[in-house]
Amino acid sequence: MSEPKNLAIVGATGAVGEEMRLCLEQRDFPVKSLTLLASARSAGKRFPFRGEEIEVKELTHDSFEGIDIALFSAGGGISKEFGPSAAAAGCVVIDNSSAFRMDEDVPLVVPEINPDTARTAPRGIIANPNCSTIIALMGLAPLHEAFGLRSIIASTYQAVSGSGAQGIVELEEQVNAIATGGTFEPKVYPRQIAFNVIPQVDAFTDNGYTKEELKMLNEGRKILGLPELKVSCTCVRVPVYRSHSISITAQFERPVDVDAARAAYAGKAGVAVKDDPANGQFPVPLDTTGQDDCLVGRIRKNLVFKNALDLWVVGDQVRKGAALNAVQIAELL
Amino acid sequence: MSEPKNLAIVGATGAVGEEMRLCLEQRDFPVKSLTLLASARSAGKRFPFRGEEIEVKELTHDSFEGIDIALFSAGGGISKEFGPSAAAAGCVVIDNSSAFRMDEDVPLVVPEINPDTARTAPRGIIANPNCSTIIALMGLAPLHEAFGLRSIIASTYQAVSGSGAQGIVELEEQVNAIATGGTFEPKVYPRQIAFNVIPQVDAFTDNGYTKEELKMLNEGRKILGLPELKVSCTCVRVPVYRSHSISITAQFERPVDVDAARAAYAGKAGVAVKDDPANGQFPVPLDTTGQDDCLVGRIRKNLVFKNALDLWVVGDQVRKGAALNAVQIAELL
Repeated sequence: MSEPKNLAIVGATGAVGEEMRLCLEQRDFPVKSLTLLASARSAGKRFPFRGEEIEVKELTHDSFEGIDIALFSAGGGISKEFGPSAAAAGCVVIDNSSAFRMDEDVPLVVPEINPDTARTAPRGIIANPNCSTIIALMGLAPLHEAFGLRSIIASTYQAVSGSGAQGIVELEEQVNAIATGGTFEPKVYPRQIAFNVIPQVDAFTDNGYTKEELKMLNEGRKILGLPELKVSCTCVRVPVYRSHSISITAQFERPVDVDAARAAYAGKAGVAVKDDPANGQFPVPLDTTGQDDCLVGRIRKNLVFKNALDLWVVGDQVRKGAALNAVQIAELL
Repeated sequence: MSEPKNLAIVGATGAVGEEMRLCLEQRDFPVKSLTLLASARSAGKRFPFRGEEIEVKELTHDSFEGIDIALFSAGGGISKEFGPSAAAAGCVVIDNSSAFRMDEDVPLVVPEINPDTARTAPRGIIANPNCSTIIALMGLAPLHEAFGLRSIIASTYQAVSGSGAQGIVELEEQVNAIATGGTFEPKVYPRQIAFNVIPQVDAFTDNGYTKEELKMLNEGRKILGLPELKVSCTCVRVPVYRSHSISITAQFERPVDVDAARAAYAGKAGVAVKDDPANGQFPVPLDTTGQDDCLVGRIRKNLVFKNALDLWVVGDQVRKGAALNAVQIAELL
C-alpha cells in the first residue's frame, strides 16, 4: 500500500460513517490524518480512532483543503452540494449516495469485481454502488465468470439499518410498544415494520418499480459491463436489524451445474459459500452481521428456465454494502 | 345450501382447527352437530360454538359414526391413520395435510379456482392445498384466465403461524429474551427467527429444494390443470405472526398489460387488488390478518421476460391458506 493519506468522512455520525471509521481502523488503512465532518448540529461530538479522540467538525466548502480522500455518506443532497468542491480541492471523493452513480464519467466500483474502473475518475469522484446491488453482485460475479450472466430476477429481504439509525429505532420502538400494549405511529416506514414486511424501499417510479428496484438493473449493468443485462427486482423491507438477504434467479449464457456453481466461488475474495442443505447449512442475516464476507447458499438448478440457478445471498449492507466497499475503493487508489 | 350436516374437526385444538370452528360460525355453515376431536391429551377441553360449549373428545377409529364431513388438520400422520377409516364410515374427509394431495384419486381444491373437481372424490377424501400454494394461486388464477399461465418464479415471506401455535410462541419468546437480555435456544426453527429470516421451510429434498418449495410446483399443476406448468420457488420464514406474502414473477402465453392485469380481478371472489403506488397503496401481511380475501399489489411488467408480470400477493395462511379453504370445500358438497 502507498504512503499514508489524509482522509475525511462526510456524514461521520451516521450509521455508515461510523462503520467507515471502524473499517479504516480494522483494516489498518494507512491514515495520516482523519477528519470527521458532519452537520453543524453534530459538530463537537467526539469519536475514538486508533486510541485517540477525534472531534467532529462542521462540513463547509472549505473542509477539503489538504484532504487526499473523502468518503461521503450523508445523502445525495450533501454529495451533490459538497462533492464537486471537494474534488475541486484536489481530493478524491468516494461517494456512497446515488447522486453520481449513473454518470458516465464517474466509475461505479465493487473492488472485487471491477477494480480497474477506479483508475480513471475524470471528475475526481468514484461512486459506491447501492447496498442490495453490491450484495447481489458479490454473489453473482463468480457465476458470471463461470457461466456468463444474462438475467436476474431478485426479491430482497432488506434490514432496517438500510434506513440508517432511524430505521433501527423505529423497529425497536414498535416492538416495545407492541410488547407493552402501547401505541405508535410509523414515521420512517409507510407501514408498521415490526412483525410485518413492507414491499416498498425508496420511492415509486412511473413504471411501478421503486428507485431501489431499478438500481440493481442500472448499476448492475454498469458494474458488470453488461449493457444488455436484464434485471427485474422486488425490494422488501423486513424486521431484521442488519444484513440484507436476496433470493435470486439468474439465467446464464452457458449450461449450469450446482457443483460447478459452488466451485466457482473458490478463491474469490469477499464471498463464501455456506450451502449444505443435508446438514442444514445455509446463510441467514445474523451470520453476516458485522462480517466482511457475503455468504451464498441454497444454490439450486432453477426449475423454470434453461441454464438458470436459484440462490440466496446474504451480506451486511452497512459493511460490505456501504462502508467496507468505500474503504476498499480507497485502498485501490 | 343443502340440509344441515354433522361435522367433525380433527385437530380441533390446533391453530387451524380453532380457525375452522370460527369459519363455520362466521359463515353460518349449516351445522347439525359439531364434534371436536383431538389427542387424548386435549380431550376434555371445551370450546364455544354458537353460544354453546363443546367438549373435545379423543380421536379414535370409531369417532366418525354418523359424521357427514370431517375437517382434518392434525398433521399428515393422523390423516393417513384416521382419514381412510373416517371415509369408510361414510363421511367425506377434507384433509389439510399433505398426505393425500398428490394422489390421483383425491381432488385438490381451491373453491374459487377448481370447484368442479370436488364433485368426484372416489375415496371420500378431498385435499386442501398447501397454504403458500393457495395464496399464490388466488393471485395468479385471474391472470391465468386472462393471459394463460406458463411459469412461476416465487419467493415467499412466510409467517410463523404457518408452524402452528408453537411458531408463534417461539417468536414471542425470542423477542422477549432479546429485550430482557435473556438467552434462548431455537426449538421450532433451525435458527433464531426473531429479527432474522430463515430460507428453509419444511425439509430439504435431494435436488436442494425443500418440500414446501416443490408443493407450489406439484400442487399448482394439479389445481390449475396445467401439467406443463413450470414453477421455481424459494420459501423463507420471516418474523411475522400471521399472513404469508409472496413475490411472484409469472410468465404468460399471451401479451400482458398492467391495467388489463388489474382489471382481471374484477368480480373475482376471494381476491382483491390493492395496487396504487402513486398513493402508497400495496398489501402487507397486517392487512390480511384475520381476513378472508387475499390481496394483490405491486403489479408490474417484468423487465426480463416477454409476457411476464411481477406481483406481490398476501393472504392469511391460517384462514384462506387453511381453515377457510377447507370450510369452503365443505360448502361445495
